Amino acid sequence: MKRVYNFNAGPSAMPLEVLEEVQQEFLDFKGTGMSVVEISHRSKAYQEMQDETIALMKKLLNIPEGYKIVFLQGGGSHQFLMVAMNFLKGKAGYINTGVWSKKAKEAAAFYGDVYDVATSAGDNFSFIPDMNEAGTFDIEPDTDYVYLTSNNTIHGTEWQTFPHFDVPLIADMSSDFLARPVDVAKFDLIYAGIQKNVGPAGAVVVIIKEELLEKANDALPPYLQYKTFVDKDSTYNTPPVFCIYFINKVLHWLDRNGGLEAMEAINRKKAKIVYDAIDRSEGFYKGHAREDSRSIMNVTFNLATPELEKEFAEAGTAQDLIGLKGHRSVGGCRASIYNAVPLAACEALAKFMDEFRVLHQD
Amino acid sequence: MKRVYNFNAGPSAMPLEVLEEVQQEFLDFKGTGMSVVEISHRSKAYQEMQDETIALMKKLLNIPEGYKIVFLQGGGSHQFLMVAMNFLKGKAGYINTGVWSKKAKEAAAFYGDVYDVATSAGDNFSFIPDMNEAGTFDIEPDTDYVYLTSNNTIHGTEWQTFPHFDVPLIADMSSDFLARPVDVAKFDLIYAGIQKNVGPAGAVVVIIKEELLEKANDALPPYLQYKTFVDKDSTYNTPPVFCIYFINKVLHWLDRNGGLEAMEAINRKKAKIVYDAIDRSEGFYKGHAREDSRSIMNVTFNLATPELEKEFAEAGTAQDLIGLKGHRSVGGCRASIYNAVPLAACEALAKFMDEFRVLHQD
Repeated sequence: MKRVYNFNAGPSAMPLEVLEEVQQEFLDFKGTGMSVVEISHRSKAYQEMQDETIALMKKLLNIPEGYKIVFLQGGGSHQFLMVAMNFLKGKAGYINTGVWSKKAKEAAAFYGDVYDVATSAGDNFSFIPDMNEAGTFDIEPDTDYVYLTSNNTIHGTEWQTFPHFDVPLIADMSSDFLARPVDVAKFDLIYAGIQKNVGPAGAVVVIIKEELLEKANDALPPYLQYKTFVDKDSTYNTPPVFCIYFINKVLHWLDRNGGLEAMEAINRKKAKIVYDAIDRSEGFYKGHAREDSRSIMNVTFNLATPELEKEFAEAGTAQDLIGLKGHRSVGGCRASIYNAVPLAACEALAKFMDEFRVLHQD
Repeated sequence: MKRVYNFNAGPSAMPLEVLEEVQQEFLDFKGTGMSVVEISHRSKAYQEMQDETIALMKKLLNIPEGYKIVFLQGGGSHQFLMVAMNFLKGKAGYINTGVWSKKAKEAAAFYGDVYDVATSAGDNFSFIPDMNEAGTFDIEPDTDYVYLTSNNTIHGTEWQTFPHFDVPLIADMSSDFLARPVDVAKFDLIYAGIQKNVGPAGAVVVIIKEELLEKANDALPPYLQYKTFVDKDSTYNTPPVFCIYFINKVLHWLDRNGGLEAMEAINRKKAKIVYDAIDRSEGFYKGHAREDSRSIMNVTFNLATPELEKEFAEAGTAQDLIGLKGHRSVGGCRASIYNAVPLAACEALAKFMDEFRVLHQD
């Protein structure tokens, strides 16, 4: 069987072990005589699996008391709206670190006033605003919440530590969820589309503080209220069963491989391998992110010209290094090195980068 | 490998051939060296697969020019809202034939006036209103659309022929989609959650007439507009790739087995086998649906007491006839016999019903 090195930004590489397990038991879920895609979401078999998934996530993320976990559909785009519909009553502050926080803010603007708490737009989103820098964070009075994007898939920047405010903090962690430990207690709501580190496209995990839930708008249609899915334990309507099942498998994989501390260590090692290839290139590869804001998930860089970037991505594909083209909105190159991308893939990429440079450097 | 007869109402039985194909190629999608859950939704491999899925659906349903097909997430519950948000400007008429049309109407009431065009609530939703009966259908002036549910999963009734109005007609076909040919030209919008006949929970197919699209509310956030997904060919955001891939497989399966005419013929044969077991029982099994409104997808019936119904469902489970309990909102018994439920399952069920009756009949 052919298996490439997959640097896609999402949907993206999944752990081979997990894929094999899913394949192996695809026709019979736990002796039910049904595929996991055929079981009822009202069955004991499903409920036990969902319960275990939630318990594993609580364990891995060390989630304190007072938080609920729900599974939703619709991706980040739906969360942009749900966050605002549920919690934006007067105004909300957005930390604008790239395309996804900008989209979240634009969506929220349909429901109330929004403003930039801080932004790196002026420098082409190449950094995360410094939380200690005086005046960077300007929270206006009567702000309902502050919203941030923990990792910026397109620009390749990532929060290294998270800020604290006296208002609820909401984070889109879609692209670095479960890639490192997170102090959940700092947040009032965390959500993550699962299609990067956690599973097939089609589900979103939401971790929500009960205290925040009490402040939610309860005049919305039930489907648009987080409370509905908390009260109905994610089965208000049919949940995306296969996605949740897959999450379960990925969580087991993380758990038996040392949890999030171990995952972070290997992710840092992987990222260093690729960043080192940039740093030793004497400007042949120009990293987009400022060094203090570099993402361990998405390594973004440019070559001298768009033509050379195209050639680079194509040469990568020819060597089974897939997905090295940057996001269509910004161009350049990008290697997404999520949890399931093996160390060997990063080594192969660095080697390829060195070789391509030698061939093309003056 | 154990394989039960699966009468679940949804998620439900899928064709074994399709499950086997999905399993077989799960680690490598079309020689890409990636699982289908790992491919990018911006890749050629994905786009070709989605294009083929749409072409196959157009072929099988014989969809005329002037219609678009999109894939969304969020299930029927999300469609209840999208329909109203997009098209309810003044008032809308709902044909109330059970729980799901009632829920659709309640959701729409958040966005405008709604009224019952007709209802079978008075007779416990045991029939589909007769479209030829004088006065049954009372369309008020300035109605934006009429909405109906083609098959009522919970009550076991199904439209045999569809009505025509001088306003747009919108149908939830979630539970009998692709179970029989449909004259799509009669409808302005058809949607179907796929988790009955078509695939794993997590996607909705929407077939929408371009003329209707032109009337849509364009002041909504883009994520809530059908137009966005039409314009972006279902990839405004990451689509539920695995679900769409699975739909593709099911469509191929339908196509190589004679299409929807052949499917309807076998479905009618299957349904007759189960209804006959009810009809020859001399009242031991009481069919819920009026004979002229019987569903070929969900056969609903009662026994003398809730205790006996419980015993019936449990005895079924013991013989690997799974999912015979009625919906928790109405009780009773139900056998869902979607496309993928084999004829042999219906025969086994009828035999079991006869035997259970003989054991328990006075």
